[in-house]
This record gives sequence, structure tokens and C-alpha cells, in this order.
Amino acid sequence: MSGNIEIRTIVGNRNINTVTDTPVTDPASSSKGLEGSNAFVCQRSKLVRYTSSCTGSSSEDDDVSPREKVQKNSAGISDFCVRNINQHAFGRREIEIAEQEMPGIMALRKRAADDKPLKNAKIVGCTHINAQTAVLIETLAALGASLRWTACNIYSTQNEVAAALAEAGYPVFAWRGETEEDFWWCIDKCVNAENWQPNMILDDGGDATHLMLKKYPAMFKLIKGIVEESVTGVHRLYQLSKGGKLTVPAMNVNDSVTKTKYDNLYSCRESIIDSLKRSTDVMFGGKQVVICGYGEVGKGCSQALKGFGCVVYVTEIDPICALQASMDGHRVVKLNEVVRNVDIVITATGNKNVVSREHMDKMKNGCIVCNMGHSNTEIDVNSLRTPDLTWEKVRSQVDHVIWPDGKRIILLAEGRLVNLSCSSLPSFVVSITSATQALALIELFNAPVGRYKSDVYLLPKKMDEYVASLHLPTFDAHLTELTDEQAKYMGLNKAGPFKPNYYRY
Amino acid sequence: MSGNIEIRTIVGNRNINTVTDTPVTDPASSSKGLEGSNAFVCQRSKLVRYTSSCTGSSSEDDDVSPREKVQKNSAGISDFCVRNINQHAFGRREIEIAEQEMPGIMALRKRAADDKPLKNAKIVGCTHINAQTAVLIETLAALGASLRWTACNIYSTQNEVAAALAEAGYPVFAWRGETEEDFWWCIDKCVNAENWQPNMILDDGGDATHLMLKKYPAMFKLIKGIVEESVTGVHRLYQLSKGGKLTVPAMNVNDSVTKTKYDNLYSCRESIIDSLKRSTDVMFGGKQVVICGYGEVGKGCSQALKGFGCVVYVTEIDPICALQASMDGHRVVKLNEVVRNVDIVITATGNKNVVSREHMDKMKNGCIVCNMGHSNTEIDVNSLRTPDLTWEKVRSQVDHVIWPDGKRIILLAEGRLVNLSCSSLPSFVVSITSATQALALIELFNAPVGRYKSDVYLLPKKMDEYVASLHLPTFDAHLTELTDEQAKYMGLNKAGPFKPNYYRY
Amino acid sequence: MSGNIEIRTIVGNRNINTVTDTPVTDPASSSKGLEGSNAFVCQRSKLVRYTSSCTGSSSEDDDVSPREKVQKNSAGISDFCVRNINQHAFGRREIEIAEQEMPGIMALRKRAADDKPLKNAKIVGCTHINAQTAVLIETLAALGASLRWTACNIYSTQNEVAAALAEAGYPVFAWRGETEEDFWWCIDKCVNAENWQPNMILDDGGDATHLMLKKYPAMFKLIKGIVEESVTGVHRLYQLSKGGKLTVPAMNVNDSVTKTKYDNLYSCRESIIDSLKRSTDVMFGGKQVVICGYGEVGKGCSQALKGFGCVVYVTEIDPICALQASMDGHRVVKLNEVVRNVDIVITATGNKNVVSREHMDKMKNGCIVCNMGHSNTEIDVNSLRTPDLTWEKVRSQVDHVIWPDGKRIILLAEGRLVNLSCSSLPSFVVSITSATQALALIELFNAPVGRYKSDVYLLPKKMDEYVASLHLPTFDAHLTELTDEQAKYMGLNKAGPFKPNYYRY
Amino acid sequence: MSGNIEIRTIVGNRNINTVTDTPVTDPASSSKGLEGSNAFVCQRSKLVRYTSSCTGSSSEDDDVSPREKVQKNSAGISDFCVRNINQHAFGRREIEIAEQEMPGIMALRKRAADDKPLKNAKIVGCTHINAQTAVLIETLAALGASLRWTACNIYSTQNEVAAALAEAGYPVFAWRGETEEDFWWCIDKCVNAENWQPNMILDDGGDATHLMLKKYPAMFKLIKGIVEESVTGVHRLYQLSKGGKLTVPAMNVNDSVTKTKYDNLYSCRESIIDSLKRSTDVMFGGKQVVICGYGEVGKGCSQALKGFGCVVYVTEIDPICALQASMDGHRVVKLNEVVRNVDIVITATGNKNVVSREHMDKMKNGCIVCNMGHSNTEIDVNSLRTPDLTWEKVRSQVDHVIWPDGKRIILLAEGRLVNLSCSSLPSFVVSITSATQALALIELFNAPVGRYKSDVYLLPKKMDEYVASLHLPTFDAHLTELTDEQAKYMGLNKAGPFKPNYYRY
Repeated sequence: MSGNIEIRTIVGNRNINTVTDTPVTDPASSSKGLEGSNAFVCQRSKLVRYTSSCTGSSSEDDDVSPREKVQKNSAGISDFCVRNINQHAFGRREIEIAEQEMPGIMALRKRAADDKPLKNAKIVGCTHINAQTAVLIETLAALGASLRWTACNIYSTQNEVAAALAEAGYPVFAWRGETEEDFWWCIDKCVNAENWQPNMILDDGGDATHLMLKKYPAMFKLIKGIVEESVTGVHRLYQLSKGGKLTVPAMNVNDSVTKTKYDNLYSCRESIIDSLKRSTDVMFGGKQVVICGYGEVGKGCSQALKGFGCVVYVTEIDPICALQASMDGHRVVKLNEVVRNVDIVITATGNKNVVSREHMDKMKNGCIVCNMGHSNTEIDVNSLRTPDLTWEKVRSQVDHVIWPDGKRIILLAEGRLVNLSCSSLPSFVVSITSATQALALIELFNAPVGRYKSDVYLLPKKMDEYVASLHLPTFDAHLTELTDEQAKYMGLNKAGPFKPNYYRY
Repeated sequence: MSGNIEIRTIVGNRNINTVTDTPVTDPASSSKGLEGSNAFVCQRSKLVRYTSSCTGSSSEDDDVSPREKVQKNSAGISDFCVRNINQHAFGRREIEIAEQEMPGIMALRKRAADDKPLKNAKIVGCTHINAQTAVLIETLAALGASLRWTACNIYSTQNEVAAALAEAGYPVFAWRGETEEDFWWCIDKCVNAENWQPNMILDDGGDATHLMLKKYPAMFKLIKGIVEESVTGVHRLYQLSKGGKLTVPAMNVNDSVTKTKYDNLYSCRESIIDSLKRSTDVMFGGKQVVICGYGEVGKGCSQALKGFGCVVYVTEIDPICALQASMDGHRVVKLNEVVRNVDIVITATGNKNVVSREHMDKMKNGCIVCNMGHSNTEIDVNSLRTPDLTWEKVRSQVDHVIWPDGKRIILLAEGRLVNLSCSSLPSFVVSITSATQALALIELFNAPVGRYKSDVYLLPKKMDEYVASLHLPTFDAHLTELTDEQAKYMGLNKAGPFKPNYYRY
Repeated sequence: MSGNIEIRTIVGNRNINTVTDTPVTDPASSSKGLEGSNAFVCQRSKLVRYTSSCTGSSSEDDDVSPREKVQKNSAGISDFCVRNINQHAFGRREIEIAEQEMPGIMALRKRAADDKPLKNAKIVGCTHINAQTAVLIETLAALGASLRWTACNIYSTQNEVAAALAEAGYPVFAWRGETEEDFWWCIDKCVNAENWQPNMILDDGGDATHLMLKKYPAMFKLIKGIVEESVTGVHRLYQLSKGGKLTVPAMNVNDSVTKTKYDNLYSCRESIIDSLKRSTDVMFGGKQVVICGYGEVGKGCSQALKGFGCVVYVTEIDPICALQASMDGHRVVKLNEVVRNVDIVITATGNKNVVSREHMDKMKNGCIVCNMGHSNTEIDVNSLRTPDLTWEKVRSQVDHVIWPDGKRIILLAEGRLVNLSCSSLPSFVVSITSATQALALIELFNAPVGRYKSDVYLLPKKMDEYVASLHLPTFDAHLTELTDEQAKYMGLNKAGPFKPNYYRY
Repeated sequence: MSGNIEIRTIVGNRNINTVTDTPVTDPASSSKGLEGSNAFVCQRSKLVRYTSSCTGSSSEDDDVSPREKVQKNSAGISDFCVRNINQHAFGRREIEIAEQEMPGIMALRKRAADDKPLKNAKIVGCTHINAQTAVLIETLAALGASLRWTACNIYSTQNEVAAALAEAGYPVFAWRGETEEDFWWCIDKCVNAENWQPNMILDDGGDATHLMLKKYPAMFKLIKGIVEESVTGVHRLYQLSKGGKLTVPAMNVNDSVTKTKYDNLYSCRESIIDSLKRSTDVMFGGKQVVICGYGEVGKGCSQALKGFGCVVYVTEIDPICALQASMDGHRVVKLNEVVRNVDIVITATGNKNVVSREHMDKMKNGCIVCNMGHSNTEIDVNSLRTPDLTWEKVRSQVDHVIWPDGKRIILLAEGRLVNLSCSSLPSFVVSITSATQALALIELFNAPVGRYKSDVYLLPKKMDEYVASLHLPTFDAHLTELTDEQAKYMGLNKAGPFKPNYYRY
């Protein structure tokens, strides 16, 4: 670990409509980071439970650090570092299942396999490592890339999958439960390999970018492009750009249309229901719910809950979104006006202290409180940690907070993202994101000189459309093609893009 | 075990829109019964996991039969038989949580506590024993009844709850994992107590009724009324009535309006989503789904799935229901016409072999198949047990059935009721049922001589309405009262009933 | 006009989820009847405008009574009495258009044409006479019946259609704008024909039945069956039956399942929107609406308005329906609680004075008030006829009632059925009713002796199902057939009926 | 008519999600323009019918041209030219009714009346002249502006309203049924007034701008700003800008967020239902509908029709929109795949020949075909004008086109915009547009020098939000305000704007 690199513990889930409340910028924040990452731990524990129930044993508790072990895969190669290479078979099976649920990225693999659009690309990857990202990794390889991979989170690695990747010959450096030092060591192992000069970075949170820029500035200058998918990483790229330190083109895939709709509207519309059911078994019919924030996430939640017979109230600061809520049939209120009567409170604002202690003092017995927004600051959970209130953990991710008069509110995931903590992210959503990442890599790697400068770009509309088109066969959806005459009339290329950049969808 | 009593193993879940495919009538069916009850085992295992994660230890594996143990509660009473009286504290907490989620039955307890409408009632109860039924039991006691209780299913008893009831002084005879002999011994202990002549039966499946009628015919003649809530039990009562053997009035609460709507339409509209999410993490948006049967259950499923952006097809044999499906925006098809294209197949017909091997041969890779209907016969699961197909259990309640060409279909709960196997029944739904049962007991016990003959009755409309009214405060719903003038105009009593018996709601 | 027959003016539209508030039983009510029938007049005037815009001329204003004219059709026959036989071509075209929109009755005509199930039936018909009923009339003839027809309402006859029927050789006695005396004269002409002894009655309101019973009791005794479709007529039949005066079997087709769902739920869900739009051009999105009554009509209205983004409140007296409203996501309130805030008030209770002057005093400026229920009593319109309020008719069927402070409420159709006054009844709905009537005639005419006694019957379930099945091809809906094995398992006949009589759909 | 001005007849309805297929650029197109404007004629004729039904008489047919009449208002002023000044009372009443239905513009009038933000503004207005635009005109005056007004369409003037404005002292030059020469004469009278130098233009179609630029270039240079709301006018402005001829700032209010959502999504979701009902009385339940194009208009139509129980198919060329349709539960198909089976075909693409003769040849009998898109080119109506097909006009805006085998398709509004032809635009939608126009005028008139250059601008986000906020009280919607702490955390001004420009809503 180089002394001039900030030591940080990485906060989980940066890549899924998530942003840490305060960008982590100094070592002191590491413990906070650890706390914040509990959300992901919970999710992982669920996966691990599933895993262990099938394999019978887990080497999670293995005492020896992977860095001290000597392991080789079947081909005799040892350029990797995982928990236990012997778990590869189960990991492979997980990958195979994921392949079936990720039609878009698999279609891309198939269509582009002959072209090898990533031939000669040398990619440093730093993402979560699980069955779904493995499908992305193997797709990039199938498209011609050579790559080295590490984890963007010390808790999120699915060890069996890492083993399967290592067995398949990929230089993977990641395991669940890394120390902070391990974390940076792994990135370093990816970046700094003998006889291997990387020319692309696929980052999720900005740490690989950060390390290379700081520790290997010469190497960094030879990079052709960076693809970043997290809010945090994008934020850091824009700051680099503003500071004049970004010397290569970077692509912000976080804000592409297709990905955004899936991460927010479509995914949340299902996961709010799933999260509430799994954690509380609540019956929705007839319940009164207030949703704070009517952005894409709030819209998704409202639609789903209204569909189940809830009476939905919305709070908003933006009059345009408030008018949308009205036109969608929801009463727009101030939280104070309804907080005594509602059965469920959901935050989706990206703001802080939207639900305050004062609000929670007024809630009725049994009220469920949870957060679907960006960060764990929306509900002022800290205000509940006072001596007069009793906390009772009734199951994983579910706390009863009990007032002196016996009133209980049901707090989910301690105010962290409830859909990440209490439900699963469908592989289909990950397929959208992965295809977006792969296309961004292809675009940056193959772009003629001059198309991209040292700046942060959005995915070109045409590629955004292509990601969507890759996923249409799943729905047996048949696109209509413009005739020549129609294309001319509309002033469009028959292959797209079909909309101006400002189009709102 | 008395020789003149049929030895039967009890099939689980008879009381929740469930009927066993073949009414159990002879000992030979016991192994089938065992198989059928797996559904409930799975559900219980989930609850038990939750339980054990909280208590740290479970005495499930206790080798000694409860019948051989000597146990006393804190008051020194030993007129009970449960797994382990020491678990009572945790059971009590479970009951207290359930009380909060069962507003209707708790309201009844409060309203009628002074009247003691069940004073002098001596009730033999034979139901599932869990936190929710404990709330019913303690309510009946609060209304003045004396009672003895046993389980209607050898697998479904929540031991901690049984312990809590025993600790509270109720003569409870039940534990999870009874043998068939235990089962009948327990019922006998309830029925045949010293110095205690029962005058009411609350039954769920008809076994307590059956035993008393066969073994204690004289005692049976003194019964004032039977309340039965299961399809199976009701079927047996009607057969007794036809055969002229029913010598007491019985009330079929299974078909009361309020209960039926909750068991079928409202509950299933939520549980289909919950079940599919928990077992498969499937994303619903854009999926094509065929629902076989458009009764209340099918209507609930269709509404929920359409709400999530599924394309819903319906199959029906009844032209009236088919027309309803059309008017609700679903294409009505024969299964064969769509089975190659759909992503999910759901049965809700009450019929057998609705999904045949031939259908499953045509399904596409990844198709999910599950049953929301009455019995485990709707999907011809047995037809899948052939040498050419491979079964792979990927998690609890989820099997991949693999065709020689690699095609997999995803079979949930082996064709049993997926909502019982893969999701939880909200306490609110149980509250409706419990209130219905309690009111039926009150009605039969207090009815003037001559109101009921030795026949099977439906719950009087007015009581059905009362059950509904008990649950309105949950939704802060405010009923309008008729003025005298309006009541006269409508020819109605201001207190109801408000509709003729044939009203369809 | 025979002296011993009560002279009555007939209230329009009794057959469409309509009942007059007080059954008309004496001559004194005739002026009231005239008022009540305004609803239909409005609808007719719309049709007439359409008519006249196409034909260029109308003989509505013809001064000579049809009874004084001598008219013959092309075949030289004069056994009819219509306004103007020369209008037949346009009437025929109207009938042809209606045929295309009435698939069920046309399918019945086609399927049963060879069987002639009404051979030898001699039917006296007394219904509205318009393009849609003409389709029914000609279908009955095609099935073998001989018939004579008259109008059940003095205002509702479509003269061109009557002419077309006369031209086709049917003895039709009806015109728009009959006097009361004309009305009974026409019925008499149908009933009392030379060499023609009727054996069936198809009635809509009970007047043909009434006249025959009173004036030709001997003839009445030879009737094989009566089919009645209106609430009023059914009410009168039940009274006859109670009084022991019903000497023939009668069928109440008003309460058949299929017809009821279409008349109430499906039709009203569309017509509430249509009525409000046509009369007020109101934009629905975001509007607050209170619906009084959550029966089938209220359910239909609520579903439609919620779908358009309205916030819907419901008032109910029946706790079961109130619970349904809650589960469907509507707040259940007392009218007083919301009447100051809502934008639209809709009544659908069948009750009287549901919206009182006191309520209307509290409504906000611009509030729209209308009635979708049984009668014109639900809104206390008379209470608005006080000197302090000003009425301003802003267009047909729309009155502004203006308070002294300038507040206006917008009253539609003076509180009569707004969907009849301000929108059209789709032919498809009439097709359902007509097919139901035709099948009831067939059933009664062909029933073996003893199947029906001198009582009032509901349409047999199987025929109800048949009506539905006749309309399925419109939706390209494909019914599934039971296999022999399944039918046996279910205990059903493969041809139906498929449900017990108490089934709630 | 000045010789150097292009003589054009103006196409109606340019301002409501409408664009003429070919921008009108030379005199030869005038007859086409006339044809195109039939759509509006129909709408007007409806209004006129309403009008005449209330006033009893109309001077539409007045033979004398208004230009040849000498008229004065009550104040003795004659600086106007309308059909008949005596109609002013009825026009005033129409305006008063409209005021009640246009809460946003009225709120603006009230809030800004003291500030007089348009003091010293001298506005030339060229828009439709009807009750709703009169509310805008009088609001602008109340805000301090002096103004002269003319019509942007020769058919769309509501004569009574023009009279009311003239009576109130506004120099209005417009009447229904102007000749082309009249049209340009009226504009000229507005622009070129003695002692009145205009400094702002409010245009709808670009004609006032065009005339002033061509005929009075010196005057044009003194203009401070142009506000344009039509697609066509905006198009022309962008062309001027490209050509370097735009010497003043212009604001494109057509693409403001609030207006766009109302014009397209919210308005069309209601008007598609209204249009189809009023023109065909079709019953929606169970009908199969294909919607070509899934932009905002297509989304609105789909949502409404699905809500009424239609089976909705969507065609799309853009994979992102196609994916949205899939996620919303609609099958995405090529038109050819479903055209034989559907009951209704709706176009909403902005493209041409989306429905071709070949498609229509395949449609089934009774299929309804209509257009909700930009222009009358979407359905290839001309291809239906062949000798083998018979056209039969069955009512206003409804043609049956009959194939030799008797098949009929029902063509609405001859392929023009069906919602403009067959339904009304709610005043609330116009209120949104009017408030947007007024705010754009205020912004341009008061902007400090340098804020706007000679270019075309979108309405600033903050003003867009303000338009929305003006309309929230209608829905009793209560906005939440950011605390100082929250505003800081979000990096937002507490008064907005709240979203980045690229936000998609």
C-alpha cells in the first residue's frame, strides 16, 4: 500500500441508485464507510445462505488470508488471489444461471463475438464480483479484451464466483472480507502487472482510477478511456475534470436513459413491494402510505402501492413533480399533515432529515418507516438513539423502536436503502447496466481520435438505444423499421438515434 | 387410539382456500396426506428459522415424546401436553405481536368482554396452533368460554405458542411433529376431560367432530353447535347431514362473504407477487403470464400482475368468467395457444391436470410454473417424474426440471399452493377468519331454540357484515348511517343486514 | 281505452339499472311519470338530431295522428300503425348498423335458425322500439316466432325503425309522442288480434302483462310464459305472485348475471366518464371525487375515475362494501367530511336524499353533482328550488345553480340518471340484454310441463352462461373445454352449468 | 394586402401538439391549408352549435364583411373590427365561465396585478380568439400591458368573444370566416397602429412575426422579445435564427415541461377516450387496440385504454420507447402482425403513412381508425380515395369506408387529429399554456440586457416550475419547502429551480 494513497474503506452499493451521503475523502471516514456497508452485508448474507444451503460448507471462516495461500487453478496458473479456488464449480453454476437471466449482455456477446471489438483492449476492472458481473467479465473477454479484475467493495465478493473466474484463467484479486489494506493491494495487483499495460478502466466508485492516477500517473496517461457507473465515481470524475486533472475521456454510464429507467422506475416499482413484504409481511390493501419525493423512484413506488389498493400521499418540493403526482391521482401534502394517520412512510428524495424525530414522535403505533432514496440520511435515524426510546430487533433488517407509552414504529434497514437490504436486484436490471458498460467500453476504445476529449461524456443516444434493443427479445417485442421515405420525412437515420438529446421519455 | 376410529394423517392447510384433492377417508391415504402436508412444513420451517434465529436454540429435535414428559406451568398446573413449557416467554411475545396485527378479533374481545356472550360455553377447539390462533383462543376465553384445544395438523403447531397457552392455563395438547397416534390422542384429551362436558366444537377439518361423533356419541348429542371453517370439514358436514347423521346445528364459515374475499381475492392478489419474488426474484415488467382460471383467486392474481406490467392471458371453462376476463383486458386463450411463449404459468382452477406434461414439453426455457389453486393436482407434477427429465433443487421450494436438450422449467413448491409454501399469510387475513369463527360460535351458542336445526348453515349476513365492520377502523373508514327516512324508503333495518342473500358483491 | 284498466304514463328506461322511485300504481302518477321520462327524451333528441342530420327531414311534427292515417307497406299490408311508413329505408339502415354491433343476438339468430326453437310461439312484445330492439324482434321471427309489437314508452320509439319493421311485415303499433290513450290502444292492438292467440309475452315494465290480465283474463290463462326485464315489471310480477294472481310462469331476466354485470359494472365504468365529458368537458386528472354507494355501479365509476387520476372517496352504509372500497384503495368517508373539498359528487345508492341541500350548501364553487343510481331521488333536487338560488341552464342537461354569494354548482340532468341523459348505451350492452330475453323465451316456450310453475324464475345458470358464450367471439376469446376426466373430477357437466347458484362472480 | 408578403391561408390548431405536415411557405399551399383547417372547423362548429343553442340566433351568415361595417362599442370607440359588437354580452359570459376553469392564469393575474410587470409593454398578439385566450389577453392587460390582437386562424374566432373584447376596449381584429386577404389585413391593423410602437410579439404560428419582419423591418428591430407557442412557429424561428435573420430574442414555449406534459400526456389520455366515445359510442372493455407510437401521446392513450380493459398493442421504431411499452405491459408488435385482429387503430407517431392502404385492406369489418399524432399524414387517407371503395358519411367526423365485399372501416376526422375534431380541449390545459405564455412575456420584457441574445430560448426552468405552482391550488396540493439545511445539502436555492435542465420528469 503506497503511502501517498488515501486509505479508505469502501462503501457498498454505490452503483445502484445510490450515493453515499458524504463523498469519502479521507482516512477518517473509514469506520463510517464500514457502517454504511452493512446494507450490503445483509444482502450478501442472504446470498451466502443460499450458497451454503446448496454446497453444504463454506470456507468463509477460513483463518488464513488468501494473500498468504498458494493456489493454482487446473491449468496450473496462479496469477489470481481468491478465497478458495476449489469452490469454482459452484461458482460456475451460479454464473450459468445468471447467464440465462441476462439476455442483453449475452446477446451482445453473441453478436459481437466475431468482430472482437475489444481486441487489444487491456481492461482494469474494479466492480462488485458476483455471478452477474462475472457474466460481464466473460463477455468482455469474448469480445477480445484482456483484463484483470478486482473488487470495489470489501464485503461484496461472491467467493465461489471469484474462484470460478480464476479457474477460467482470469486474473482475479478479490474475496469477501478483505481488510482495507487487502483492498488496495488487490487493486494494485490488477493495475500493476508485468508485461501488461492497461489501456481501459471499468470502474465502480472510482478507486481503480484514483489509484492509477495517484500511484502510476505515467500509466494513467496511456489510458484510452474510463467507464464509470456509480454516482460517487462520476462525481469524482467531474471534480477531476473541473480541476483539470482528467487527462483521458471518461464515460458516465450512470445517467444513460435505459439504465436510469431500470435502476429507478422499473426496479423500484417492484422492489418496494418485495422489500416491505419480505421484512414485514404487511398487507397493502387499504393502507395509507406517504411517499416523500416524486422522482423516478417515488413514481415507481407510488404506482406499485396504488396498484395494490393503498391510499398514496406524496410530498414534494418541486411544483412540476407535485403536479405530476396530482395528475396521477395522489394527494400532495406536507408530511406533517398526514404523518399521524399513515401506515407506511417511504422516503425517496435524495435529501436529508426528510423524516425527523418530530415526525416520528407523531406517527401512530405500528407505522412502518423505510428509505428508498439515495442515502441513509433521509430518515433521521440518529435522532431515535435517545435514552427514552427502546430498540428491539425483531428480525434481520427490522427494528421496533418503542416509545415510553408503548408505541412502536417499525424501522427497516436502519434507514438505509430498503430495497438493497431487504430484497434482491433482478439479474435483468444488472443485464441492462452491464450491457451499458460494455458498450461504453467499446465506444471509447474504438472512437476515432478527436471524438472524445479529456472530459466526462454521457453514453451516446444511439448506444443507449442499442442497449434497449438488446433486451427487447426477452419480451418478444418486435421493432418497426422506418421506410426510406419515412426516415427522410422525419429527418432520421433508419438506424437511429431516434430522439433529440433533450427528449424526456 | 380407538379401533373404530379411522386412522388418518392430516393434511395441512385445509383452511386457506385449500382443499385436499381427495377427501381423506381411509388409513391407506396417510402417506399421501404426509406428502401433501409438505407445503405447510416449508412454511413452518421458515417461521422456525425466524424463531430459532431469535431464541438461539430449539428443542425441535428433542428425543423424548411430550406424552412421556412431566411438565407443569408456573401455576403448578399440568393439564396440557406441549413440547416444552419453558418456551412460553417467546411464544407470549409472538402472541402479543399478532394481537397488534389482528384488529378485528381484538376489537371483538374488547367490545364483548363485558357481555361475556360465551359464558358457560365449553368449547373443544381443533385448529392450527400458532400465534394468530392463540389470539382467537384467548379471545374466546375473554368472552366467557372455557375451552380445551388441540391441533388439526401434525406439523403446524408453533411449539412456543403452545407453551405460552399452557403457561396461561389453557389445556392445550399439541406439538410440532406429532405421530398419527399422537394426533388422535391429543384430540381425545381435549374431548374427553373429567368434569367437563363440551357443548361447542370449533373445528378445522372435521377431526374433532369426527372423533366425538364416533367415539362419544352421547357426548356429541349434547353439543349445541359446530363451527367449521375448512372446505374439507364443510364437505364432511354436508355428507353427515345428507346421511342424516348430523344431530346438531353446524355453521359453515368457510363461505362467508368477508372471509372468502380476503382468503381469495385480496390475499392472493398480494401473495402471488410475494411468492414469485421470494422464490425466484423474477422481474415482472413485460413478462407474459397465463393464469388458468378466472375465479376470485385468478382475478386477484391477474390484477396484481397486470399492475406490474405483465401481459396476462387467461384460460377459462366458464363463459361468464371468460367474459369478465375479457372486460378486464385479458386475452382469453386456450393454454395450448400461448404455452410456448409465456414466462409464467399459474393455475387457479380447482381442477386437475390443467397443466399437463404435454404443455410442459412445449414451454420455453426458464418458464416458471406454479399453483395458486385448491390442490396439488392442477399441475401434473407426477408426469415430470420420468427418467428423461432431471430435477435439480436450486433452493427450498424451487426445482429446476431439466429436459434432455437443456431446457429448464422452474417448478415452485412441487405444484402445491405456492402462496402457502413461499410467502406468509398476513395476520390481517387471519383476523378476518378468527372474527368470523368467534361470531359463529356466539350465534350458535346464544340462538333461541328453533332458530337452527340439525343442518349446515351459512353465517347470517348480519354477522358477516359485523365481521367487516370490526375491521374498518384499521382503514380509518367511516360508515354512513341510514336516516330513519332512508331506512324506511329502502325497506332496511338501520343496523343491517343491508343486502339480500343472493347479492354478489 | 278500457275503463277498467289503470291509465298510466310510462316512465322511460326502466330497464337499464333503473327503477322509478315509487312504482307507478295509479292514474294520479301520470304527470310524475312524464317528468321522469325526460331523461329519455333527452337521449332521444340526440338520436333524432343524428337522424335528421342524415335524412334531411323529419315528420316528427306531423299533425295527423297515426291512428287516423291509412298506410300500407310495399306488400300492401296495413296491419300496423307507425308515424310514417315511408321512412322505412333509413330505419332499415339503422337496423343494419345495429346488427353489426350486436354480435351475440346475431350469433343466436344464426345458430338457431335451423332449429326454429320458437316455431309456433306467438309473442306479444312491449319494449322500447329502436334499432337495437328491432334486431331482437327480427331474431325472434327468424327463430320461428310470430309476433306483434308495441312500445313500452310513449317517447322512446324511433319512428324510422318502426317504419322499417312495418315494411318488413311485422305488426308494429308505436310512434314517438303517443298520448296515454294511444299507448294503451297500441298495446290492445297487439294483444287482441283476429285469428291470433298469443302464447308468450315479452314485457318491459309489465304493461302488456297488466292489460292482458285485466282485460283478457281468458287469453292470459293460455299464455305459456312471460319474460320481463325491468325492475318495475319484475316487482309487479312478484306482487302478482304473492297475491296468487300469477297463473303462468314468468322469468325475471333483470337479475341474470351477465346482464347485470353489463348494465351496471361494465357499462357504467365507461358511461360515467362519457357523461361527464360530454356535459362538462371536465378534466379528470387530479380531481377529487366522492362516490356515494359502492355497489356494482359505484365500483364501476370508482375504477374509471381512479384510472384517470382522480382521488376517489366512497360513502357506504354496508360494512362489507365499505371494506371492498378500502381494499380497492378508496378512502371511505361520510359525505359531510369531504363535501367542502370535492370537485365532483356522484350518487349510486338507490336511496333517497343522499345529497341534501345542506350538503350542497357546503360544496365549493364549480362542484359537479350528478346521479348514476336508480332514481332521481338520490340528489334532493327539489331542495334547490328555493327563491334564494338562481338556476341557469348552460346547455342541455346542464344547470348552474347559483348561490347568493355567486357560488355555482353544476347539476347534471336535474338529478336523473346522467348516463342515460348525457351519453349513449352501447349496442353491445343491448345485445347482452336481447340475447338474455330471447333465451328466456326459448326456455319457457320449450320447457317440459312441470319444469316451471306459476311463479317468477331467474334465468337458468346454463342459459346465463350461454348468453356470455354468444358474446365471446367479439373478443376473440377461446373457451377451454373440460376433458371427461376433469368434468368427472369436478362433478360438472362438460356443457355447464359451471357454478353453483350462489356463486358471486 | 401588401404585395411583398406571402399570401397564405393559415392552418388551424397549430398550437396543440400539432404540426402541419409541410410548413406552409408559398401561396400555392393555401388551398391545402384550407383543407387542413377543416379539423378546426369541426370543433368550432360544435362550439357554435352550443353558442347558438343558447343565444337563439347567430350572425354567422351576415353577408356584409366586418371591414365594411361601422361599429362602435358602448364607450364610442371604434378601433376594432369584429363580426358584431352587439354579441358582447354573451361573449362576456363565456369569458367569465372560462375564468373559473383557468385557475393558473387567474392566479397570476391576481398575484402580479400590483407589480404590473408588463407596464409599458406593447404587445401584438396573434392567436386563436376564444373565451380562453380572452382570459389571457385580459390578464396581460391587468399586468400592465397595452395590446392589439388578431386571429391566427381564419376559422377559429369565437365572434361573441371578439365582440366582448372590443366592448371592453381592446383593439381586436378578427372574425370567424375571414378571407385570406382579411387575415393579413387584420394582422396589419394590429401591427401598424398610429402612435403605438409595439415592443413584444405573442405569436401562434409565426404570422405576426413574419409580417412585421417583412413589411416593417424597422419596427421589428425595436421589438424586445417574441413568444411563440406553436411547433410551426418555433420551426420558423429556428430557421430565421439559422439564417441570421432573427434580430431579437425569442422564446419557444412549446417545449416547456409543464405545457408539454399537459398538451400530450395528460390531455390525450382523456381526449382519446372522449373522442372515440363521442364519435362512435364504442364500448372499450375487451377491445383490441393498436397504438402506433409510444411517445407522450401514445403513452397517454395506452394508459387510458388499458384502464378501460382494452388489450393494447404498441408499434415503435425506437427501442427505448419500445422497452417502456413492454415494461408498461403492452405487447410491442409490427402493425402487420395484429392489423387483421384489432378493433381500433390509433396513430401517434408524427410520421407519415404509418397506416397504409395495404394495412387497411387487411383490417376487419368495423375497425375504427383514427389519428392522435401531429398531422393528417399518419393515416394514408388518400389511398382510400379509389373507385373500388365507397365512402359513407354516417355523422360529422365519421366516415364508413366500404370495401367491395361489404367490409367497412370507420375513419374518424378523415385522419386529422381526432381529439381536436371530436372532443374539446379542457380549459385547464389552456390555462397551463396561457400562464406559460404570460410568464415568457414577463421574462423577456424584464430581462436585464444581455441575458438573452438574438436566439431562440426555452422557458427558464424556474418559470416552468412557477407555471406548475400556479396550478397546484386547484388540486389542493401543498408543496413542501426546503429547510435552509436541506437546501444547502442539496445545493439548491429554496425557491428553485429544483432540477437540472436535462432532468426527464
